[in-house]
Amino acid sequence: MSKKISVGVIGATGMVGQNYIRLLNDNPWFEVVYVAASPRSTGKRYREAVAGRWHMSTDIPSKVAELVVENAGNVGSALGKCSVIFSAVDMEKEAVRKLEMEYASKGFAVISNNSAHRLTEDVPILIPEINHDHCGIIPAQQKRYGWSRGLIVVKPNCSIQSYMIPIHALMQKGYRVARMIVTTLQGLSGAGYPGPSSLDIVDNIIPYIGGEEEKSENEPRKVLGKVSGGRIVPDESISISAHCTRVPVIDGHSACISIEFGEAKPSLDELKEVWRSYRSVPQELDLPSAPQPPIVVREEIDRPQPRKDRDAENGMAVVVGRLRPCKVFDCRFVGLSHNTVRGAAGGAILMAELLKVKGYIG
Amino acid sequence: MSKKISVGVIGATGMVGQNYIRLLNDNPWFEVVYVAASPRSTGKRYREAVAGRWHMSTDIPSKVAELVVENAGNVGSALGKCSVIFSAVDMEKEAVRKLEMEYASKGFAVISNNSAHRLTEDVPILIPEINHDHCGIIPAQQKRYGWSRGLIVVKPNCSIQSYMIPIHALMQKGYRVARMIVTTLQGLSGAGYPGPSSLDIVDNIIPYIGGEEEKSENEPRKVLGKVSGGRIVPDESISISAHCTRVPVIDGHSACISIEFGEAKPSLDELKEVWRSYRSVPQELDLPSAPQPPIVVREEIDRPQPRKDRDAENGMAVVVGRLRPCKVFDCRFVGLSHNTVRGAAGGAILMAELLKVKGYIG
Amino acid sequence: MSKKISVGVIGATGMVGQNYIRLLNDNPWFEVVYVAASPRSTGKRYREAVAGRWHMSTDIPSKVAELVVENAGNVGSALGKCSVIFSAVDMEKEAVRKLEMEYASKGFAVISNNSAHRLTEDVPILIPEINHDHCGIIPAQQKRYGWSRGLIVVKPNCSIQSYMIPIHALMQKGYRVARMIVTTLQGLSGAGYPGPSSLDIVDNIIPYIGGEEEKSENEPRKVLGKVSGGRIVPDESISISAHCTRVPVIDGHSACISIEFGEAKPSLDELKEVWRSYRSVPQELDLPSAPQPPIVVREEIDRPQPRKDRDAENGMAVVVGRLRPCKVFDCRFVGLSHNTVRGAAGGAILMAELLKVKGYIG
Amino acid sequence: MSKKISVGVIGATGMVGQNYIRLLNDNPWFEVVYVAASPRSTGKRYREAVAGRWHMSTDIPSKVAELVVENAGNVGSALGKCSVIFSAVDMEKEAVRKLEMEYASKGFAVISNNSAHRLTEDVPILIPEINHDHCGIIPAQQKRYGWSRGLIVVKPNCSIQSYMIPIHALMQKGYRVARMIVTTLQGLSGAGYPGPSSLDIVDNIIPYIGGEEEKSENEPRKVLGKVSGGRIVPDESISISAHCTRVPVIDGHSACISIEFGEAKPSLDELKEVWRSYRSVPQELDLPSAPQPPIVVREEIDRPQPRKDRDAENGMAVVVGRLRPCKVFDCRFVGLSHNTVRGAAGGAILMAELLKVKGYIG
Repeated sequence: MSKKISVGVIGATGMVGQNYIRLLNDNPWFEVVYVAASPRSTGKRYREAVAGRWHMSTDIPSKVAELVVENAGNVGSALGKCSVIFSAVDMEKEAVRKLEMEYASKGFAVISNNSAHRLTEDVPILIPEINHDHCGIIPAQQKRYGWSRGLIVVKPNCSIQSYMIPIHALMQKGYRVARMIVTTLQGLSGAGYPGPSSLDIVDNIIPYIGGEEEKSENEPRKVLGKVSGGRIVPDESISISAHCTRVPVIDGHSACISIEFGEAKPSLDELKEVWRSYRSVPQELDLPSAPQPPIVVREEIDRPQPRKDRDAENGMAVVVGRLRPCKVFDCRFVGLSHNTVRGAAGGAILMAELLKVKGYIG
Repeated sequence: MSKKISVGVIGATGMVGQNYIRLLNDNPWFEVVYVAASPRSTGKRYREAVAGRWHMSTDIPSKVAELVVENAGNVGSALGKCSVIFSAVDMEKEAVRKLEMEYASKGFAVISNNSAHRLTEDVPILIPEINHDHCGIIPAQQKRYGWSRGLIVVKPNCSIQSYMIPIHALMQKGYRVARMIVTTLQGLSGAGYPGPSSLDIVDNIIPYIGGEEEKSENEPRKVLGKVSGGRIVPDESISISAHCTRVPVIDGHSACISIEFGEAKPSLDELKEVWRSYRSVPQELDLPSAPQPPIVVREEIDRPQPRKDRDAENGMAVVVGRLRPCKVFDCRFVGLSHNTVRGAAGGAILMAELLKVKGYIG
Repeated sequence: MSKKISVGVIGATGMVGQNYIRLLNDNPWFEVVYVAASPRSTGKRYREAVAGRWHMSTDIPSKVAELVVENAGNVGSALGKCSVIFSAVDMEKEAVRKLEMEYASKGFAVISNNSAHRLTEDVPILIPEINHDHCGIIPAQQKRYGWSRGLIVVKPNCSIQSYMIPIHALMQKGYRVARMIVTTLQGLSGAGYPGPSSLDIVDNIIPYIGGEEEKSENEPRKVLGKVSGGRIVPDESISISAHCTRVPVIDGHSACISIEFGEAKPSLDELKEVWRSYRSVPQELDLPSAPQPPIVVREEIDRPQPRKDRDAENGMAVVVGRLRPCKVFDCRFVGLSHNTVRGAAGGAILMAELLKVKGYIG
Repeated sequence: MSKKISVGVIGATGMVGQNYIRLLNDNPWFEVVYVAASPRSTGKRYREAVAGRWHMSTDIPSKVAELVVENAGNVGSALGKCSVIFSAVDMEKEAVRKLEMEYASKGFAVISNNSAHRLTEDVPILIPEINHDHCGIIPAQQKRYGWSRGLIVVKPNCSIQSYMIPIHALMQKGYRVARMIVTTLQGLSGAGYPGPSSLDIVDNIIPYIGGEEEKSENEPRKVLGKVSGGRIVPDESISISAHCTRVPVIDGHSACISIEFGEAKPSLDELKEVWRSYRSVPQELDLPSAPQPPIVVREEIDRPQPRKDRDAENGMAVVVGRLRPCKVFDCRFVGLSHNTVRGAAGGAILMAELLKVKGYIG
């Protein structure tokens, strides 16, 4: 790899932004040269802007620490510095939509962690292992808005990562999932900083996360959809019911999943073999952030567990276990993924790597 | 109430036994006069036997503190002292079965927290609000074994309390539940002392509890069954799938429940009204430990929560919330009950109160 | 007691305010008839004003739930309704100082949880067991400001309760404490709601609490001081060093204390006996909220512990244990008190009870 | 480095043993070729012996996984396989003492995590930065017991690491510490597996750890002592009082420390500069496991914190912060070290590296 692609992070001072900074530091293809945030951070060195609220366990990468933070709302300030924008802005949805559109209109490839554009019908929600082909909508997107090189792709909600890849692996082998009921036990970092009050979570769980169940039920349909006629047509053949709960775990979203197959019903052994042998485009392309393997199957009776399994494959793999028959549907299992890595910045970086190889950025 | 009924607690030094001691202290109908445990505690004062391992937040009741602990295996030592035995022994199942049979054969009414007899077809698993009529099997039980006054009744597993009473309330109004998928988030005290290692539960959850899913799936069928021909015929018309997980919560079992009704399907408003107005035999009889009401419906979007709701009605009520449509089945909700009160000693004491009013003990 | 004294709570919607509402509900001498908060709550029913943020484990007392919340800044709105104001306002210190002065100037007895007036030299910091005689400064206070019946007394910082009463017990018997080094392990509720972020406290401790060490070192000197010349002259003979840390415990402040005595040095047995037999004015007057006894001495090697001991005497007692020789000073021990009961609203109510008996309110 | 030195781990299946296996996997000088444990593991593959109880977050190193576990009590089984034994056996003290002596008598260099030999006057307790010169007692040790190449060195208790290196840094510059009072807040893993019951530590702290205070007070004196006349003469000039508490933190021991200097008293700025510039023999020799730097000074007001700082320098550094004047002694600060790395296996490996360079093993 000769020269790294220059990238920017907007919303760089928040927790997702910090994760971008942390994870991009070791990325062989991308280099952070531009950081932007709200006006109150503008003009400060990045290290000053995050002083007292740097939440990563590693130190601020030294180069980024000295970058001067720009105003994320001032799109012009990124011009000539980078061609890719990782968006982690935390604003009112409509404002995010407009801002990301503006960056795209100025020629930036916008890779967003925000949910603002997830329902926009020509913006793909990418899980590279599952719907890498949704990149194919980008030319239509660019044409519609009159963008030459700009584009917008978004990351799904963090809660669905722990089961969508295992389910896709099955679908890929012809085992259609018709219905599923899932209960998630989600880590605290999924709520951003400061997240739930400590007074609400010690010796407690909270059986509600605002907006999370709707996202968990709707986004998978779009992820599993088809590109057709310049838009992504959701897969309405799958029904999902999600109960989302918050538990006193720092990182890691767990899910207890019961699934009902369509016509073809695999045996449990087939199922495990499908997961074990699963490889998809990111693995075949050997993308730098691609987990090898993407699905880790654990045989211990009491795994996966968040603290013990969230870091599998640097937090990029989905870990599954406890596969067993379901007394109501066909089978059930437990899935786990690292919400701030695979479910946020890490997943978005993998998306960017895919776009690079596919020629959409670089 | 003139004179209290003398009762004994076997397995009195363990955590369930301690809860019996604690809860019976305030009971207007029963008085602990006999405590028994394993040989290593035999002969000590109760306060000495539990020194350094009394886990209740209130002090040892002073009268019980001075009782001399008997050998639980020596059934004769209880003769002449009490007529009711609350069993909290923790031994190999077969040994428990035999010991409880021996106490019954000597004329004691055995009310057990242990799972040993839950599958015995003429031993009822009682949730007084639901299957008070299962007491009707006692004469057949006594006849079969040739017991004059002895009897055995058992308490169900603690995990099912948080949803069986709400489901029964619906059934009672003609809304048959055909299928349900439930994920439990169970408190640590459900595992007894010492329970899970702290190293396994801080910043973690454990998605497995040995034997719990089977009990959660099978016991409800017996509870909902019918007494017929000297045995309890399970209700096979309900299918249950249970995912049981352990979370870092001291007390309180939560459950996320999706249910599919049979023919008749109530509206959500009807459903809530059914729960709100639900009263059953323990309430009508005004049993001392009966929660009034048995079901507490919370309207807040994020309740019930274990720390905030487990003590409702002194830990004897089931608290429900988040009733909403289910995208796969008909509706879903969150239920909560206090596992060491309603789900253990408190539930067993309520059973004893029911038996007293029905004339089986006293 | 014929008729209860009408009292008001300002800052009634916050966590300390809620604790006042909760604890006053059972008080035989006082009755809440007036609640006030910031303008954004003004005009709402109390139950509406705290909807979604009522943090107590018991329900809102029904009478208070229906009270209309007044603007705490509008002192006139309390006139004619009550004569005592419990202050739990949470504003900038100077604003608190002025507001409390204004209530006092209008004839109200102001009993404050806020630290604003703790350094005002004629405002006593009361721990009723220790410095009940500091009430004697009230006439001078009233004279200086020209108040007829108004007065201000304040509660000390919650962190010092766990050791000041045991230390006073010793001083009362002639054992002067010359120097002490204390490390506190403080519960989360001491920070108010929402308090520390859950992301900062799961699997973690925070070895810093803003302003806490200074308060812990200075306030005891004033509490132990003497009324002289219309002001309270601090006791400069005691030197205190406090390390204050935050731990993942909901309620309860623990302290590890090493003390060096002055001339007279008691034996450990004498020391325990002093604590066990300690009774002071609140106990002698049998004030409704006075713990009987005020100091609970535990003999178990690993007590006191916050979850197991914080509720001793309804959260009003100080629990001590682990008394042993110190390798550097004379002796050391562990103290514990309930920070939101004894250390906040409960302690303030006890102050009000003392003032009533002494004739300053009523 | 041409060829690695073959080493064995006894007590290899326990938690400290697992940490040895994990940390030695990356060590450039040592290679694990021998694992031994209790008879119940003997004969199994290591991976089988730890199945279901491997507590590390990384997988079992593949070579070690296939080693057959030997009986630790059978010293002969190690002969010819390795020359260094890392001891993590967990048995009755007297048995440990004998077993370690037996390994030494057969020519093994025994590096022990166990406390059994810490009071043996010719066995050094090594903290390589502090008392590397205590290795000088090894010839006397070998002579006394008639060992040709065998030797025993031991690691200190994990609780003292967080402050002894900072204190030694000061002593090295001529600032004698006369007295110190320390309160530790220790992580759960310090108790081994399973450690405290989860029921005792959620929403709680335990202000007692058996034997810990005595070790924390006595071991530093030996560490700071002098080799003289074939034994280590403790430094009696320092007085230490330790309060040891257990907190709900997985890894990391924190300490709040007040110190009183002897004659020379440094300013806080000097103190920080001493810490920042501190380097000792392990750093000068560039030992593979030596932290560079050994002391990390944090300036943030609320650091060090266990979750955020325990992994500094791969868990081998001591992290200090909150340096400030003490109101009773001269100054105070907070120290932190990773108890299962620096405080256990990591510290012992550093000792072995020192012994290798000094020619005692290899």
